[in-house]
Formats: sequence, C-alpha cells, structure tokens
Amino acid sequence: MKRNSDFFITIEGGEGSGKTTHSLLLKKYLESKGFSVLLTREPGGTSLAESIRKILLNPGSNLVPLSELLLYEAARAQHMEEIILPALKSKKAVICDRFTDATLAYQGYGRKLDLTLIKKLNDAASFGITPLITIYMDINPCLGVNKAKGLNKESYGQKGDRIERESLDFHKSVRKGYLELAKKYPERIKKINTKKDINKTQTEIRKVVDTAIKNV
Amino acid sequence: MKRNSDFFITIEGGEGSGKTTHSLLLKKYLESKGFSVLLTREPGGTSLAESIRKILLNPGSNLVPLSELLLYEAARAQHMEEIILPALKSKKAVICDRFTDATLAYQGYGRKLDLTLIKKLNDAASFGITPLITIYMDINPCLGVNKAKGLNKESYGQKGDRIERESLDFHKSVRKGYLELAKKYPERIKKINTKKDINKTQTEIRKVVDTAIKNV
Repeated sequence: MKRNSDFFITIEGGEGSGKTTHSLLLKKYLESKGFSVLLTREPGGTSLAESIRKILLNPGSNLVPLSELLLYEAARAQHMEEIILPALKSKKAVICDRFTDATLAYQGYGRKLDLTLIKKLNDAASFGITPLITIYMDINPCLGVNKAKGLNKESYGQKGDRIERESLDFHKSVRKGYLELAKKYPERIKKINTKKDINKTQTEIRKVVDTAIKNV
Repeated sequence: MKRNSDFFITIEGGEGSGKTTHSLLLKKYLESKGFSVLLTREPGGTSLAESIRKILLNPGSNLVPLSELLLYEAARAQHMEEIILPALKSKKAVICDRFTDATLAYQGYGRKLDLTLIKKLNDAASFGITPLITIYMDINPCLGVNKAKGLNKESYGQKGDRIERESLDFHKSVRKGYLELAKKYPERIKKINTKKDINKTQTEIRKVVDTAIKNV
C-alpha cells in the first residue's frame, strides 16, 4: 500500500453529525492497517489556533461575519503550516475534522458571504492542498443540532456554543451548502447518511476510504 | 466647514514614530475646531479585536506570516463594522492609528507576503473605505524601535512586543514599504519627518489636515 504525502482525509458535516466519533473509529482502522495517523481538528490543532477557536465558539463573541471568516482562515493557515504539512511530509495519514468545505458551507451558504472570496482565502490558507477524500456526514439539522447541544452542555450550557445557537434556518442553509458541494465534487466528497447505527455508518466510511487508498 | 462621512484620517508609521502622541494632539486640535472626534487604533478598538491584538503582540505567539495577516484583517473587519463605520455615519471625524497601509508595509514589505492578496483582503476588511488623508510619520528604525521598546517596557519587557522584537532589517523593509506607498499615493499619503520637535511636527500635521478638510 502506497503511503504518500497526499494521504489527507477530511471529515465534514453539520452539528451532531457524528464526526468526532467516526474520526476516532477511522483512525483506529487505519492504524490497524499499519498507517501512522494524525487526527486533528479545525479550528484548532495548535495552541494558537485553539485560542482562536475559543473566540469563535464563545457565545459572548459579537463577531461580524467577515471577521469570523478571517479568524477561521487564520486558524487554518497556522494549523496547516505547524501541524498538517509537516505530518503529510513525514508520510503520516492525516484525518482532519472540518476543513475548507466547512468554510464554504458555514460562512458561504450559512452567513451568505461571497463564495469567490472564501475560495481565494481557502486556497491561500490551505497552501493549495486539497484532501484526497472528504467524508461528508449528512444529518437533518433538526436532529443534529439538539444532539450537539447535549454533548457540549458542560462547556457552553444548554444552548450550546456560538454556532449551535444559530437558527434552524442557518443550519439548513449549511446543509444545503454541503449537499451542493458533494454534488459539485463527487470524486472527492462522499456523502454518508448518518441515520444508520454507528457500526453500519463506520463500515460505509471504511469502504469509501479503502477505495480512495487503492487509487492513490 | 463640511463634515461628511469621508472624514477618516489614518496615522501610519514604524515603531516609535510618535503616532500615539500626535494622534492625541490632532484629536484636540480637531475638537477645538468643533469636530466630534473618534480616536481609535488598529489592531484593536473593540473588545474582540483587543483579544486578537493580544495574540498578535504577545512575544510567545508562534504565528506564521499568513495567519498573522489574516488576524490583522479579522480585527480590522470587526473594528470597521462595529466602530468606524457607525462613527463615520454619525458624522464624526475618525482618527485611526494604523490601517490598511500598515498591512502592506508590515506583512507585504516586512514579511514578504503577496501584495495582491493583501490588497484584496484590505479591500474586503475595510469595506472599500479609503482614508481621506493618511499621515505617514517617517522615522529611522534605528532610533524608532529603541524608543518604542522603552515605552512598552512595562507590558512586554526590555525586548518589546512581538513586532518590536523583529530584526532591524525587517523594520527597514517596513519603512521602505511606507516610503514606496507614499510615493505611489501622493494625494492621500503625506510624509511627515518626525526628527523635529513635537510642536513643529504637530504644526506640520495640522497644516496637512487643514488642507485636506478644505478640499472635502
């Protein structure tokens, strides 16, 4: 099995779509196949980007949409240069919980910021790196957002973090964005239906990843 | 005297060039002429942008250049939408200590980031607003940086903040950037030599501002 510097997997999806659970299970699977795996997340992954994450998720942050976008991209640039690029260079498989598609879905479709500007910023902050494969965990926001709030209760209270507190319409727009992106890039973005039980969903994810690995 | 929403003055310059002192004196002068004046600074001016300022100036922040650029632009977008645009709309004169030219000088000429990308980000984060006039306080960095470190000693120690700790070559490139910008936009950017005593320098600044006001 070839392990080249292109072995970069991203996991995307709305709130409560199961990204964290399935990223961990996928990491274990890849390790069982002999890969050295880095599992990381956006925004975050470095001490500096985690400081930015705190600003972004704090319900008290009165962020304007453009500032929000630029903070996500700042955290991404730092994360790429400090963590992801060195890991890919050292032949690790990298699984990243959210990446450039999230910015298009949340700040583009959700906040209605200009998609061309977002694409330019995405290109700059990702240093031109495109994931080998992107797992998009699809979930109805009516179910997902409440699930996420329950999981985050200890950190942000009943109402969830700053993003979870957005309106249902916002989360519906984000999902619409993801679905359009999945249609636009069918070779890279694989939609996984998260309604099934965890084991079945994970089996589906592993199949997708196995196929991608074979084609590397 | 016409007081329109274009009454936006920026003060630029390297470390220790006297921006803070002269901004305050200029504010008093404009108030004495009957203007309602907002004096603000970048990065900062809002509680959120001040959080970003802390990250930017903390010598412990291991920021990569692109992330630094994006954080400055994020702070700018927030500052514009929350503070500067409402002040201009309510017919205030706004004096801003550093703005888009600083990003070109520091991140473009200093850090060597792509000037085209910086211009795009500047346009987005300033919502297309160009200052009526920009006072560029020119100082030899050999003198200015040491002066600034002395002033900042209590906050950041003998070595100064993260930017002041940069090499003399970095500060020389920043100055070169400012001088090139002043040549490129002679109608807007007015170079003031800060070698003279404070009163003489302030008189020169007031002349420049008076002329600009007449032409509004």
